[in-house]
Amino acid sequence: MSYPVTIEDIRAAALRIAPYIHRTPVLSSQLINALTGCDIHFKCENLQKVGAFKARGAHNAVLLLTPAARARGVATHSSGNHAAALALAASHFGIPAYIVMPQNAPASKVVAVRAYGGEITFCESTQAARENELEAVCASTGASFIPPYDHTDVIAGQGTTALEIAEQLRPAPDFLITPVGGGGLLAGCAVASKALMPTTLVIGAEPAGADDALHSLKTGVRQPQTAPDTVADGLRTALGEINFSLIRDHVADILSSEDNTIIRAMRLIWTHMKLVVEPSAAVGLAVILDNPRRFAGKRVAVVLTGGNVDIDKLPW
Amino acid sequence: MSYPVTIEDIRAAALRIAPYIHRTPVLSSQLINALTGCDIHFKCENLQKVGAFKARGAHNAVLLLTPAARARGVATHSSGNHAAALALAASHFGIPAYIVMPQNAPASKVVAVRAYGGEITFCESTQAARENELEAVCASTGASFIPPYDHTDVIAGQGTTALEIAEQLRPAPDFLITPVGGGGLLAGCAVASKALMPTTLVIGAEPAGADDALHSLKTGVRQPQTAPDTVADGLRTALGEINFSLIRDHVADILSSEDNTIIRAMRLIWTHMKLVVEPSAAVGLAVILDNPRRFAGKRVAVVLTGGNVDIDKLPW
Repeated sequence: MSYPVTIEDIRAAALRIAPYIHRTPVLSSQLINALTGCDIHFKCENLQKVGAFKARGAHNAVLLLTPAARARGVATHSSGNHAAALALAASHFGIPAYIVMPQNAPASKVVAVRAYGGEITFCESTQAARENELEAVCASTGASFIPPYDHTDVIAGQGTTALEIAEQLRPAPDFLITPVGGGGLLAGCAVASKALMPTTLVIGAEPAGADDALHSLKTGVRQPQTAPDTVADGLRTALGEINFSLIRDHVADILSSEDNTIIRAMRLIWTHMKLVVEPSAAVGLAVILDNPRRFAGKRVAVVLTGGNVDIDKLPW
Repeated sequence: MSYPVTIEDIRAAALRIAPYIHRTPVLSSQLINALTGCDIHFKCENLQKVGAFKARGAHNAVLLLTPAARARGVATHSSGNHAAALALAASHFGIPAYIVMPQNAPASKVVAVRAYGGEITFCESTQAARENELEAVCASTGASFIPPYDHTDVIAGQGTTALEIAEQLRPAPDFLITPVGGGGLLAGCAVASKALMPTTLVIGAEPAGADDALHSLKTGVRQPQTAPDTVADGLRTALGEINFSLIRDHVADILSSEDNTIIRAMRLIWTHMKLVVEPSAAVGLAVILDNPRRFAGKRVAVVLTGGNVDIDKLPW
């Protein structure tokens, strides 16, 4: 069977984006390992450009546009990290990035998009409002829409995270856990992992208050995201179509955690890793805390997806 | 002239402590560089074992004890990071670490010392009270006192920070800035820097509310630390004697910043670097913010010394 994103796409993406992104470190905490009884290796994408793994996919997608299309600029809708990533990628080519953001996006994410030169249009926080506003922006500017996750070039870019993990972690981990919202990171990492770390089980981590991916994997059919309610603002989006087609065949399981465990995990990471992570980034550790027997004694890679959080408005 | 700590001591310390500590990453922020007009490279000792550079000196000192002395255990007084570091170092050899801490030490630091197995005795927050209590503990246990900074083995250990910077940063930076409290880190880094990066100017960064090192360097005579008053709890201690003898001859300048700038710098590091740093660790960036013309266009290495801060009690 052929898939829309392959390991060759991910290898090519890694070479393409290398000049623009950080190779982020993999860090561990003796105290978190003692607490969980696991050997956890955190891939620190909160230390990535724009403070999130989204820099990978956005750069890959912009670099793959034709020069003529690229010159007209790029556009997207995003709760924040993809928006900042696209604004940064656009800035490298001196082209405009038109960003449609929900009015309730965290202030820190709005500031970041502006800092990288993005032009923001605010809209209601629904999927429909975002899409309508985006369509209007693209029609009036001629900009290319770079979706936040449901796009092969974006998925291939995010998959470079697992490619780096495969190089940085020897022997390969027993598990690779990434949060799942739209599924760009999980899908890309699952494809890369299957090729490069075939014995590693890839697991998606999802907030219980936005668990459409869990239900989609269980039923085998993509389920809608209805009324998401979680502190993990980056994971409130609906699972993408291409993403699901890859996740269904490459991901071993999806586990979910309640917000109180997500916040506990976030505090542990702040306290013991000395890393600022946003709630969405803590869901990987949260599912380990919630499933101690499954991960006991195992070597686990966990992607810390981002660190963009209002430090004046912490969830504790 | 011969000095009590040499580059050979620091090279030997680096080999000795390598199995026990992290080689911490050097990270940069495009936004902080844009804001300051400098090219800043942060050496992330907040990501070090126990969340502070103090792991370096403590391990070097414990490793240099005779086996007989080591078996009786180690003791110290410290506001926190050296205490946690000594407790960790002692745990590697299964020996006790007796820790005298001021009653007003941050809760997170107390928790850390206990987590690494340190046995704590609390005392008043004065230097005299610490020293009296420590003497009693050493007399009753036979433990070796490992001072937090005024000790050649500790200084050599802390100096390995600059040895790593010299290897990680090519070409060498124009400036190397470290915070200065007791002066272990600054003295050790200054010795290493003079040998390995002879064109680099080494600068100490000090809170204006605890600026004994600044006055000591200006007058050429070690000045007492009277009534320190600063948010940077790790830098309230008095400059050490051996430390000053090295700082006087190897350090280009000491700059000080008020607490409001220190807190602003701390927020910038949290927001843009995605790193949890304690107030003391932010003083290096604070002096850059306060002296923009001096550092404009320069390549600057800044040591982020630690990340042990109560996340429920932030100074903003």
